[in-house]
Amino acid sequence: MKKRLFTPGPTPIPEEVSLALAQPIIHHRNPEFIEIFSRVNENLKYLFQTKQDVYTLTSSGTGAMEAAVANLLSSGDKAIFVNGGKFGERWGEICRAYGVEAIEIKIEWGRAVTPEEIETELKRNPDVKAVFLTHSETSTGVFTDVKEIAKIVSENSNAVTVVDGITSVGAHELYMDEWGLDVVITGSQKGLMIPPGLSFIALSERAWEMVERSNLPKYYFSLKKAKKALQNGDTPWTPGIALIVALDVALKMIREEGLENIWIRHEKLSLAVREGCKALGLRLFGHPPSHAVTAVYFPDGIDRKEFQKVLKYKYGITVAGGQEHLKDKIFRISHLGYYDELDIVGVISALEMALKDVGYEGFNPGDGVRAVQRVFAEFEGVVEKRNEDDEFPNCCH
Amino acid sequence: MKKRLFTPGPTPIPEEVSLALAQPIIHHRNPEFIEIFSRVNENLKYLFQTKQDVYTLTSSGTGAMEAAVANLLSSGDKAIFVNGGKFGERWGEICRAYGVEAIEIKIEWGRAVTPEEIETELKRNPDVKAVFLTHSETSTGVFTDVKEIAKIVSENSNAVTVVDGITSVGAHELYMDEWGLDVVITGSQKGLMIPPGLSFIALSERAWEMVERSNLPKYYFSLKKAKKALQNGDTPWTPGIALIVALDVALKMIREEGLENIWIRHEKLSLAVREGCKALGLRLFGHPPSHAVTAVYFPDGIDRKEFQKVLKYKYGITVAGGQEHLKDKIFRISHLGYYDELDIVGVISALEMALKDVGYEGFNPGDGVRAVQRVFAEFEGVVEKRNEDDEFPNCCH
Repeated sequence: MKKRLFTPGPTPIPEEVSLALAQPIIHHRNPEFIEIFSRVNENLKYLFQTKQDVYTLTSSGTGAMEAAVANLLSSGDKAIFVNGGKFGERWGEICRAYGVEAIEIKIEWGRAVTPEEIETELKRNPDVKAVFLTHSETSTGVFTDVKEIAKIVSENSNAVTVVDGITSVGAHELYMDEWGLDVVITGSQKGLMIPPGLSFIALSERAWEMVERSNLPKYYFSLKKAKKALQNGDTPWTPGIALIVALDVALKMIREEGLENIWIRHEKLSLAVREGCKALGLRLFGHPPSHAVTAVYFPDGIDRKEFQKVLKYKYGITVAGGQEHLKDKIFRISHLGYYDELDIVGVISALEMALKDVGYEGFNPGDGVRAVQRVFAEFEGVVEKRNEDDEFPNCCH
Repeated sequence: MKKRLFTPGPTPIPEEVSLALAQPIIHHRNPEFIEIFSRVNENLKYLFQTKQDVYTLTSSGTGAMEAAVANLLSSGDKAIFVNGGKFGERWGEICRAYGVEAIEIKIEWGRAVTPEEIETELKRNPDVKAVFLTHSETSTGVFTDVKEIAKIVSENSNAVTVVDGITSVGAHELYMDEWGLDVVITGSQKGLMIPPGLSFIALSERAWEMVERSNLPKYYFSLKKAKKALQNGDTPWTPGIALIVALDVALKMIREEGLENIWIRHEKLSLAVREGCKALGLRLFGHPPSHAVTAVYFPDGIDRKEFQKVLKYKYGITVAGGQEHLKDKIFRISHLGYYDELDIVGVISALEMALKDVGYEGFNPGDGVRAVQRVFAEFEGVVEKRNEDDEFPNCCH
């Protein structure tokens, strides 16, 4: 059976990227690798829309989150985080593991923190050093307006804005420098279309100043060591060479498609998934929706386990379940990375058939797919229109 | 030109392992992956010769070193490390980054610490909590008798013995449980024959008791989190899935060849490299020699840069240079992992030709290869002969 992954990490890997993984290994100090790594670094700047260097860490995304905390802050520092999902909550857990006073904004899982809530907490804690945000909360499928919040943070405090872009980079509009995001991180098995094992982090000049003052312990994730090594086009420790060689291919694909086109594609595919689900009578969970992953309530009255089994073993489709207290309430369909229109037709069609198989009667066969096709026929991208003269980091001519 | 890597990480990757890397990605919570990961874990126990679980971290080997320090120790604890090379020195750097009082035994790079030196330092510091060792010091090609030292440590202190086996696991005899090694770590791009990006760590019961008491900050590298996740056959963070799928294939090859045979092969190939070099009039650096990597002085009177260039660009051979103050003094030939007799014939032959090309006259063409062949003809493995009834962790029938 053909297997199709619709999970928010790992995400499907293009065939040419897979084949790059299988190439003979090269040494990381060889000129051949140094050239690849340099091109990767330039393309990552484009992806992050920043002039700052983007550092490649050999770890999962959580490693880059820890790198942000351990390198920016000092013991006893205060930081704000938003517990509106499993990954927002993680910022708080990491801060506390390092003795940082983590001020929690706890919101119902399924909605986004508002700029006003951030402003209120900043006014209550004027000495906060960092605000940790989650651009696309993978556990709930909720999008947070980090552009607006970054403005609020800089108007109301001296804190840096740190953005978990693990499932937003390469899916959602993100202009790190222009929006004044001080730190952005992401992971490899997401919009970057390669297997898990690498994470990425970029820091503004203000954030680098904090790194100079930070006294929290770190070694493997030391960004000062990473910065020093990158001056020689290098990493402090042996990097995930094969993954970086594959990343080079994936980033070339991203350059060819163009970042704005990729954002529009994600917007369109996510809208199609939502419309398709609604046409099947399914209720969506979470608002506003991320373009990377759609969370959907299981319909009442069906056998949820049976539904997931049919989806996986009869139709070859792997979606993600809910996490923590959402475990038996929602499932999540990812459309992050290497997906196109027919992939979405496929997953909605499989949903239709699997729902019928388990006796759900809320729609007529074809309703979902018809709604999906309508989106594709009518969709007009609404990504911020930019003047062509706007300066784009665009270093790989 | 065919390219041949003779570097102590990355090491060459068998074709079947490379092809496993290129397989379609699977989700880490899918039964298919859980089965692979469970088999990998059993085979890692065999590799480490331990009944303890071996934890797979998504990081380079340095990450596992940091995991050992951050999970075992508490602030202000004392630990002994041996600075006899770049990697031994690293233990001290990590300890200090975490506020551990690191007691240095500084020895000349190129020799091994003796059990007596460890004993002396233990008597001077009876409150030491850990002794950090480097089984095969990659920077100098020196082997350390960790079996003997572990005995000394347990006879003279309550400290745990922590072994960096990054370039020894899969090359040198190592019986973690039987030798009383409390912690053993290794990396993926070494004896395990897969690309960099994974590291491995196993802990004795005594070491786990220390983990319970440790107060150093950690999150990504938290071994308690790793232990909890492994109870469900899982990892706390998304693991390097593609690398683990490849590791499964590599470990099957290791099981098929048999660990004792692999150790004997490394002993034979390393002896052949040393004899080949000596027959060319080259002086070996470091003693006693590691079976993973051979360090050789550049001969006097040749243009070292030209020699390395010829080797790399005319003969396709990448060897490693020296590190730190040994940079212009030695080069290092690795024979760790996926190498056989003809690979050694090839590298010694390339050395002969490249040395002639740069005007070195200390031998007659063929001298090196002849010495290599003689070793192969006469070699008898001296790996400790074990009774067949000895209990081997051997869980994958």
